[in-house]
Amino acid sequence: MKDTNCGYCMRGELLEKFGIFICDLNVSSLILFKEQSKIGRCIVAYKDHVSEIVNISDEERNAFFADVNKAAKAIHKVFHPDKLNYGMYGDTGCHLHVHLCPKYAGGDEWGGTFTMNPAKTYLTDAEYAEMIEKIKAALAEV
Amino acid sequence: MKDTNCGYCMRGELLEKFGIFICDLNVSSLILFKEQSKIGRCIVAYKDHVSEIVNISDEERNAFFADVNKAAKAIHKVFHPDKLNYGMYGDTGCHLHVHLCPKYAGGDEWGGTFTMNPAKTYLTDAEYAEMIEKIKAALAEV
Repeated sequence: MKDTNCGYCMRGELLEKFGIFICDLNVSSLILFKEQSKIGRCIVAYKDHVSEIVNISDEERNAFFADVNKAAKAIHKVFHPDKLNYGMYGDTGCHLHVHLCPKYAGGDEWGGTFTMNPAKTYLTDAEYAEMIEKIKAALAEV
Repeated sequence: MKDTNCGYCMRGELLEKFGIFICDLNVSSLILFKEQSKIGRCIVAYKDHVSEIVNISDEERNAFFADVNKAAKAIHKVFHPDKLNYGMYGDTGCHLHVHLCPKYAGGDEWGGTFTMNPAKTYLTDAEYAEMIEKIKAALAEV
């Protein structure tokens, strides 16, 4: 069920290259994406190392998107984006996850898709910690 | 429930700018994306003009992703991509829909996200019709 080269499976250094673990959800984990050109960008990663939604059962898929929905509501509540984008890619990795990318009218990449990693905006540890606290508080309320 | 400027609501000319209606699914419609630099690319559009998954009920969301899953399985069956990408954007439109974008190892945009409309590859009406027949046949089997 775990791949030793996968950041979502192993966490630790592999995950820290691009994300910060926020908390576990029902069947997934919520991760803050370190690159923050779209403030509030997160990832919801499924608990198991499976490639796509077509590889899990109806019940597992429903539970996964309930988690995605909960994370999306928390992001809306904290950051008030004008739209949230949802992207599942992972051509060369094979661990089911969704990028939750907030978009702001007139802001970065507004009106289109979004780049996997624009590599433009990184925050301080204190700023990441503050975002994570706000997201955790919102998760308890949505 | 319908927006007269929305191709997913109105179909006809507005939809024909970028897609071809394939069939209705349970709570959505399946559309072939005319730009086919990634062969098999489709859209699943929700039945109502709502912005995001956070705007529908748990039951509606489960039904929607069951449709997405069925379309994804049909695309895998017909076109055998190495990976299927799933993207929900629509910053400036507000009709919930998922782009189902097949990716092929070494092919167009392999290894990353995907462009909203690469505007590179368009097919003949006969080629579109043949794809649609194959997708419809697969939907009956998945």
